[in-house]
Amino acid sequence: MEHSFIAWAKQRASRLAQVKVGIGDDAAVLVADHPMVVTTDSLCDGTHFILSECGPRAVGRKLAGVNLSDLAAMAAVPKALFLSLCLPNSLGGNDKANQPSSLAVEIFEGVYEYAERFQVAIAGGDTNVWSGPLVVHMTAIGEAPTKGPWLRSGARPNDLIVVSGELGGSLLGRHLNVEPRIELARQLHERCDIHAATDISDELGIDLLSIASASGCGAELVLDKIPIAAAAHLMSKTSGRTPLDHALGDGEDFELLFAISPQDAAKLPAEMDGIPLTVIGKFSSRTGLWGREGSRVRQIPPKGYSH
Amino acid sequence: MEHSFIAWAKQRASRLAQVKVGIGDDAAVLVADHPMVVTTDSLCDGTHFILSECGPRAVGRKLAGVNLSDLAAMAAVPKALFLSLCLPNSLGGNDKANQPSSLAVEIFEGVYEYAERFQVAIAGGDTNVWSGPLVVHMTAIGEAPTKGPWLRSGARPNDLIVVSGELGGSLLGRHLNVEPRIELARQLHERCDIHAATDISDELGIDLLSIASASGCGAELVLDKIPIAAAAHLMSKTSGRTPLDHALGDGEDFELLFAISPQDAAKLPAEMDGIPLTVIGKFSSRTGLWGREGSRVRQIPPKGYSH
Repeated sequence: MEHSFIAWAKQRASRLAQVKVGIGDDAAVLVADHPMVVTTDSLCDGTHFILSECGPRAVGRKLAGVNLSDLAAMAAVPKALFLSLCLPNSLGGNDKANQPSSLAVEIFEGVYEYAERFQVAIAGGDTNVWSGPLVVHMTAIGEAPTKGPWLRSGARPNDLIVVSGELGGSLLGRHLNVEPRIELARQLHERCDIHAATDISDELGIDLLSIASASGCGAELVLDKIPIAAAAHLMSKTSGRTPLDHALGDGEDFELLFAISPQDAAKLPAEMDGIPLTVIGKFSSRTGLWGREGSRVRQIPPKGYSH
Repeated sequence: MEHSFIAWAKQRASRLAQVKVGIGDDAAVLVADHPMVVTTDSLCDGTHFILSECGPRAVGRKLAGVNLSDLAAMAAVPKALFLSLCLPNSLGGNDKANQPSSLAVEIFEGVYEYAERFQVAIAGGDTNVWSGPLVVHMTAIGEAPTKGPWLRSGARPNDLIVVSGELGGSLLGRHLNVEPRIELARQLHERCDIHAATDISDELGIDLLSIASASGCGAELVLDKIPIAAAAHLMSKTSGRTPLDHALGDGEDFELLFAISPQDAAKLPAEMDGIPLTVIGKFSSRTGLWGREGSRVRQIPPKGYSH
């Protein structure tokens, strides 16, 4: 137990109205007017980040970013974060002389950057010191939006597939500097009738298929419409793979992927909150994942992004 | 990502009314009439359990038990559990041929035993496969009781200190078979005016001091009143420590520890829900932790249970 870290974190955390009881009791107490949206994600050293390369603050930022991205995928309003740390004793995980471990403090500060930016409370957590590598864990709680959260299960055949931003090459930096699409989701939810949504955490194909399967339909991507990030072009120069391969298979883009009727898609602006919105295909009654190149349509095997 | 495990878990999890959206979307959606009480705890192989000795089902049981114990310490009514797994690839953490990993399934089944018993939903989670040892994580969400949750901060000088059950020797088995005092807490909350409460997860002294410090007072234990478990006597035979040392210092008893006025304590039955309730001292205006033996009172240094 890291008593001096907990005492430090209690002082550091902002007090926000949604938290009646925060860090320092057996549990936190939250108040909300709407149903609660809850998501949880762990990140492990060597799999989701390399601590010796990126440093602990980037770990905290990524942890907050990926959890907030899941809330954005439901159009939820973020309210509270719970941070749980398994700190390696080999890296000074233990508090020393009543000073909180600098590893814990740095991770917390990374989370705090996002907490401040999105006005979400760090309301609790858990710290452990152990003999293994760093594992960080977060549970993020949001409030469902007034019209109800976006689910994966509402896409219908002929709905268009829309993606925010650009895809591919996240390993060059974006995977550590996640931009959770909280504000974009808020605007989309207010202005449009989105039938289903998710965020791209695994890879485009897998995440698209998760919407299609939950909705009982299939999906057809128009491959030359997929917006490819500059980082994907850059990686392609040395990877032996095409930029499109990177956009399809790299994952960790944390962009919104959603289903919308053709009528409503026609009214979508080319960008919202400064982020491009691109129609990249449509849902269909033929199950599975398909890719169109000109007049040729072939099935795309989703491989699963392997961290 | 363990897609076959998630598909399996989705079928296996009970559907309860408090969960509008459960396993399988970006986040879960919960409904509640009262404020939510949220707690989070991680357990690491080699620190909180030894997987090769206890097996994965016991890990799941302990994880659910310690989290539910935190909800009991607030008198919260458990509603939903979120299970997050970092599975070692060396132990078959990966799904094989569309079969969920048996390690993941066994941990889930251990959690499920508690979920069924306390009618709480397994509403979501996260699975990862990595190169490190097993780490399991849970966030448990409950509903605050009608009269409000018990906090640590409400004890007053002259309140009596009451503990449920018996203490010490948890390593002989109880630390893996946690009995969260959910029903006892419910009855106590309904029938009595508890000023402050926690559960004994670290050790008696540390947890008592957490109430005393939060309440701005001190605590005096009457050492010969502390109920000592048979396991503490058993361990004492080989440990070179007294049974009282074990009761004071072993930790992981997961019993309720609370503050109540002398008038209300006089009306407490000797046991409730089949569990003994014992007055073991009183809160005082002299800060710190004190132990009385006959007429002698000495300060007790809380050491902190080191897993």
